[in-house]
Amino acid sequence: MGRTYIENLDKHIGKDVTIHGWVYNKRSSGKIKFILVRDGTGLLQCVMVRAVLPEEVFETFGKLTQESSLKVTGTVKEEPRAPGGFELEVKEVEIINIAQDYPITPKEHGVEFLMDRRHLWLRSTRQHAIMRVRHHIIKSIRDYFDANGFVLIDSPILTPNAVEGTTTLFETEYFDLGKAFLTQSGQLYGEAAAMAHGKIYCFGPTFRAEKSKTRRHLTEFWMVEPEVAFNDLNDNMDLAEDFLEYIVSSTLEHKAKELKTLERNTTYLEKVKKPLPRITYDEAVEILRKKGIDFEWGGDLGGTDETVISEQFDKPVMVHRYPAQVKAFYMKRDPENEKLALALDVLAPEGYGEIIGGSQREDDYDTLVERIKEHDLPMEPFDWYLDLRKYGSVPHAGFGLGIERTVSWICGLDHVRETVPFPRMIYRNTP
Amino acid sequence: MGRTYIENLDKHIGKDVTIHGWVYNKRSSGKIKFILVRDGTGLLQCVMVRAVLPEEVFETFGKLTQESSLKVTGTVKEEPRAPGGFELEVKEVEIINIAQDYPITPKEHGVEFLMDRRHLWLRSTRQHAIMRVRHHIIKSIRDYFDANGFVLIDSPILTPNAVEGTTTLFETEYFDLGKAFLTQSGQLYGEAAAMAHGKIYCFGPTFRAEKSKTRRHLTEFWMVEPEVAFNDLNDNMDLAEDFLEYIVSSTLEHKAKELKTLERNTTYLEKVKKPLPRITYDEAVEILRKKGIDFEWGGDLGGTDETVISEQFDKPVMVHRYPAQVKAFYMKRDPENEKLALALDVLAPEGYGEIIGGSQREDDYDTLVERIKEHDLPMEPFDWYLDLRKYGSVPHAGFGLGIERTVSWICGLDHVRETVPFPRMIYRNTP
Repeated sequence: MGRTYIENLDKHIGKDVTIHGWVYNKRSSGKIKFILVRDGTGLLQCVMVRAVLPEEVFETFGKLTQESSLKVTGTVKEEPRAPGGFELEVKEVEIINIAQDYPITPKEHGVEFLMDRRHLWLRSTRQHAIMRVRHHIIKSIRDYFDANGFVLIDSPILTPNAVEGTTTLFETEYFDLGKAFLTQSGQLYGEAAAMAHGKIYCFGPTFRAEKSKTRRHLTEFWMVEPEVAFNDLNDNMDLAEDFLEYIVSSTLEHKAKELKTLERNTTYLEKVKKPLPRITYDEAVEILRKKGIDFEWGGDLGGTDETVISEQFDKPVMVHRYPAQVKAFYMKRDPENEKLALALDVLAPEGYGEIIGGSQREDDYDTLVERIKEHDLPMEPFDWYLDLRKYGSVPHAGFGLGIERTVSWICGLDHVRETVPFPRMIYRNTP
Repeated sequence: MGRTYIENLDKHIGKDVTIHGWVYNKRSSGKIKFILVRDGTGLLQCVMVRAVLPEEVFETFGKLTQESSLKVTGTVKEEPRAPGGFELEVKEVEIINIAQDYPITPKEHGVEFLMDRRHLWLRSTRQHAIMRVRHHIIKSIRDYFDANGFVLIDSPILTPNAVEGTTTLFETEYFDLGKAFLTQSGQLYGEAAAMAHGKIYCFGPTFRAEKSKTRRHLTEFWMVEPEVAFNDLNDNMDLAEDFLEYIVSSTLEHKAKELKTLERNTTYLEKVKKPLPRITYDEAVEILRKKGIDFEWGGDLGGTDETVISEQFDKPVMVHRYPAQVKAFYMKRDPENEKLALALDVLAPEGYGEIIGGSQREDDYDTLVERIKEHDLPMEPFDWYLDLRKYGSVPHAGFGLGIERTVSWICGLDHVRETVPFPRMIYRNTP
């Protein structure tokens, strides 16, 4: 008999099917035995009744251990009390492989113990749900941009220059061309592509060799970065809020079961609807001071500052127009106040901090040359980037959204390490 | 007036719109001037008539150079002879930036000249079309797996071990943990995830520090790798052909315009329908010998061999059951002939060579340990991988499809370097 997936059982009620899977749990109640089987798409309670089963089939129950693999054949019954709403009346069991002493038991384990066994931990219900939410968030991001006329541009991972210093860069030898560096952002390449396609997005892994050991840092993380020719800061904010509303509402709609498994209270997520509040950096500073924080104008917002600000709102809040001195050289200055950069950060509620960072870009050739000098950066690596201002320069803007922080926020997790299949941190690059 | 994209002009016939874009070309015909404007979504012929335009608007024509940026306002008319089928009767022109001496002119340029200016070359019609086809191929791949219940698993880029030697690996220092290496494949991680989710796919950049300077090699390329628990070699072939049919037919359907721009003869692409021919390695050797090639049984198929074999078919051909000695340690042997690995390669027609490589995986613990020893590989880095055979091992299979080779094939290109926005080759890592 062919293979049926647990997620499709509603099409097989009253029929015989064969499930290929693994033992998630089992329990015995006298003459009835229950095997909880997982097949990657769901959990299914398989019921073995002594009275109706040949002895040799009934006895397989005793051999089965947690995570043993098997094929189990039986009749699908509706059973509202069972996980998933169905039950299998077992007729046959074929054992494929008996797992001896599976290390991850239903008891509590330490995080390092589990992280060392990440290849197995992924099978656990919570981790399973997180990966499915992650997948949906990524899918909804791509769907959003694809449906809105953006062209995917895969920016390079290996980049030739360490323009902002090598301290947070991973480097590698690149044949006879000297060193190459793992990208920290596809933005500069995305700007070139936006001049070719109008609206583009980069979406790939990015790297920071940062010695930050916090709940929000990974050394390898995925980032999506839209860039739009002719967009200004306001357009950029319009795009960011429309985009966030879409991905959050799509995930709430399609991954309700997984969010329930994660016991996520979705009250705040349901409020992620346009318009999102927009405050200036000056107003953010005002909030901090009212809360008794002695914050000096001109500094960047730290993690605690972000939490305090975001706590004033029940939705993600967009903070714009930061002091230029704390922002990157490529950001355009506010024509109404040269001290400000047309930057945008979006802070997630519930203390999750910055999930989006972006800006309108400097599009004037001479000004950009000036900025590069002011930041003590070498000019030559930017030759090609400056070309974009030489040949048909236009106003343009974009932002980056960190996938792992977004998954962490939407799933309601304490630490980004569980948002990615095999996390990389300063003290971990295995398995 | 708000911005209208050229691709949406069919909704604005007879109305006034403003297009934001760049001068692609211009020509003059006495009292009528034509500006060909591109905005990333299409090309639009903008017509300036001296008799109806104020002098100062008409005179902007003289100032406009190739790739100058502008906003042009006018009335949309249907015009079957114009590119895209529409024309704009110009009323106003706002120059944003005048491009001086744009280096890529309509005349012929050498490839290195163009590659040095890749950030600008992307604006050319052919490159523009290739990137859009690439985007659609990637989208169709993700759509296929998403619609068929596969879960996306982003495998890590930074991996801890150089298990098969360091000669083709890029390496980097990883804090206090020694060296890390850029991934060559997500497969081993994908296998772990398949045991958690049943059906998964990895999709990300992979790296080969190979000194191959051929038309088919990049040092950085994207690969999609599905992996399915309980699949055997035949299931793997069924999946590969179903998948290929989908992505090719979807691209033909949705990117017909771009393929026409590329002057792609789609005769062979239209034949990519199930079933695809399946031949054994033995049969492939037979074909080579009949063609007079002195091929010794047991060797791997080279590029020329692949071309000769694929030329015998008008569809992609699946070659299976290779000599185990030329294939990776993790491939399962054919139970009917221990000398053969249950491997699968798919060769594209028209000389494009291997686009898919895959296999059923060895799922027996002791056999896999044996293989690791036979290949002189260290055991410890595979501890976690061996765990998958210890705890509920099941038959499983998967394959990898190289994106750039697939784009090259579908677009009908001579060289993979044009299939990716910013290609990386042994002699190039810029811009």
